[in-house]
Amino acid sequence: MTKIGFIGLGSMGLPMAKNLAARGFVVRGFDIRPGAIDSLAEAGGVRACAPADAADGADVLVLMVVNAAQAEAVLFEGGALAALPKNSIVVLMATCPPRAVELIAARVVEAGRSFVDAPVSGGVVGARAATLSIITAAPRVTFAAVRPVLEAVGDKVFHVGERPGQGAMIKTVNQLLCGVHTAVAAEAFSLAAKAGVDLNVVLEIVSGSSASSWMLKDRGPRMMQDEPPITSAVDIFVKDLGIVLEAGRDIKAALPLAAVAHQMFLAVSGQGYGDADDSQVIRAYRALINQSRRQ
Amino acid sequence: MTKIGFIGLGSMGLPMAKNLAARGFVVRGFDIRPGAIDSLAEAGGVRACAPADAADGADVLVLMVVNAAQAEAVLFEGGALAALPKNSIVVLMATCPPRAVELIAARVVEAGRSFVDAPVSGGVVGARAATLSIITAAPRVTFAAVRPVLEAVGDKVFHVGERPGQGAMIKTVNQLLCGVHTAVAAEAFSLAAKAGVDLNVVLEIVSGSSASSWMLKDRGPRMMQDEPPITSAVDIFVKDLGIVLEAGRDIKAALPLAAVAHQMFLAVSGQGYGDADDSQVIRAYRALINQSRRQ
Repeated sequence: MTKIGFIGLGSMGLPMAKNLAARGFVVRGFDIRPGAIDSLAEAGGVRACAPADAADGADVLVLMVVNAAQAEAVLFEGGALAALPKNSIVVLMATCPPRAVELIAARVVEAGRSFVDAPVSGGVVGARAATLSIITAAPRVTFAAVRPVLEAVGDKVFHVGERPGQGAMIKTVNQLLCGVHTAVAAEAFSLAAKAGVDLNVVLEIVSGSSASSWMLKDRGPRMMQDEPPITSAVDIFVKDLGIVLEAGRDIKAALPLAAVAHQMFLAVSGQGYGDADDSQVIRAYRALINQSRRQ
Repeated sequence: MTKIGFIGLGSMGLPMAKNLAARGFVVRGFDIRPGAIDSLAEAGGVRACAPADAADGADVLVLMVVNAAQAEAVLFEGGALAALPKNSIVVLMATCPPRAVELIAARVVEAGRSFVDAPVSGGVVGARAATLSIITAAPRVTFAAVRPVLEAVGDKVFHVGERPGQGAMIKTVNQLLCGVHTAVAAEAFSLAAKAGVDLNVVLEIVSGSSASSWMLKDRGPRMMQDEPPITSAVDIFVKDLGIVLEAGRDIKAALPLAAVAHQMFLAVSGQGYGDADDSQVIRAYRALINQSRRQ
């Protein structure tokens, strides 16, 4: 039976760790918030009191932290890498810049452990239902070893290459599309609103035409609400489109649409709505387009 | 039985006029290219030798010309409006700027004829199969009168308002989304290509995730081809995103993503590929991102 260390029990990580425990894996979990560890323990997981404690004796160490800096802190400063057994595997599932993933992978491999680049797509809904898409880059033999673990948290496991960073790059491309699709839905609705046409009619027509996107259909209805429920926050796209632009800069790829979309999310975060649902990127357009002079 | 005048027998107009003739309408068609008129006549239509000839005695005059300038030329200079009977209805189905539609409608109504703003979505495929979406703005009674005509060429007929220009505005919003979705698919693929990841893998993953769009799935595969079959040309988006920006300017709505996407299509047109398939917007990104120094 595989022993799993799991670090990062947030809105994605906690349900993923619970799904692993439910499938019979021994999951030692750590998070900086003790309440999250309690929640995992109630679901059959084991409490770890520090990153190194989660890694100690683990066959696989899953990192579902916020960003690359946290992954580095946990592994290299928090002692998790040193605590891992020699033949163990580090699986980085957080969304990180491809170049950062390459650098982390190199240090892990240099320390004699294996590394799997395995970002996910599918959001909190997919994390809870174990229906995540997992975009994996790792040597074939390492991928085969962690596959059962990945299949316990996702139902679409892709092996996209052997070089770490390739998974992160495809996730980056995915986020580029998601971010721009969300922003352009807001741009389209704001034009329609200023023109005085009924947004419900617009949504019905464009959802059923060649103008449709997954994000338009999912986030569009929430763009018409002032305080919609939060599926994913504005600041997640501030971060993820930031990663997109960093990835572009690292390989000298100009990404004009992503750059503009990033500014729109950033503007809404600057308005104080960084923790609002990402559909609220429409507030940037409201400020640009639809705010009356009196307001 | 309704007598229809039909002006503009291009790649959209000809199959639409044929579908009307097939449904038993008397269709007098005109186009500046005699071959198109011959083609309609072979399918059961009637030849008109001028715009006014097509309009003469018609209950409904359908305009499927290239742009607003052609609609104005046909109606006001070509004598079609004067030739129309007093209780007839002008149906403008070409994609035109909302403001231009308002102005044309005002002149038609002033001349004692009715006006229907009825742009379509669904492309050549929808025009042939009579499965177009038709986005109609007209007074309720006028809409009811032309409905049988619209249902002969489309299977989704929306009545979005009573004011001319409202249909054109929703079509404009539709094209904003289509254009940006196409350009951002090219941006995403170009980043992936520069990073050296397999575009077929990228397409498979993003087509099945929240990153998907109708345009991505339809045009994505063609972005990997050098000379794909032409569904709709680059220059159509140069025109349509131009209409989007004109509509925004007219009501003072800033549309940063649409403006960037427009420049990408314009760049490809400037490279000499204006008549290539619109998936070839990727050539703008290839020039920006992927061209080696030697080329």
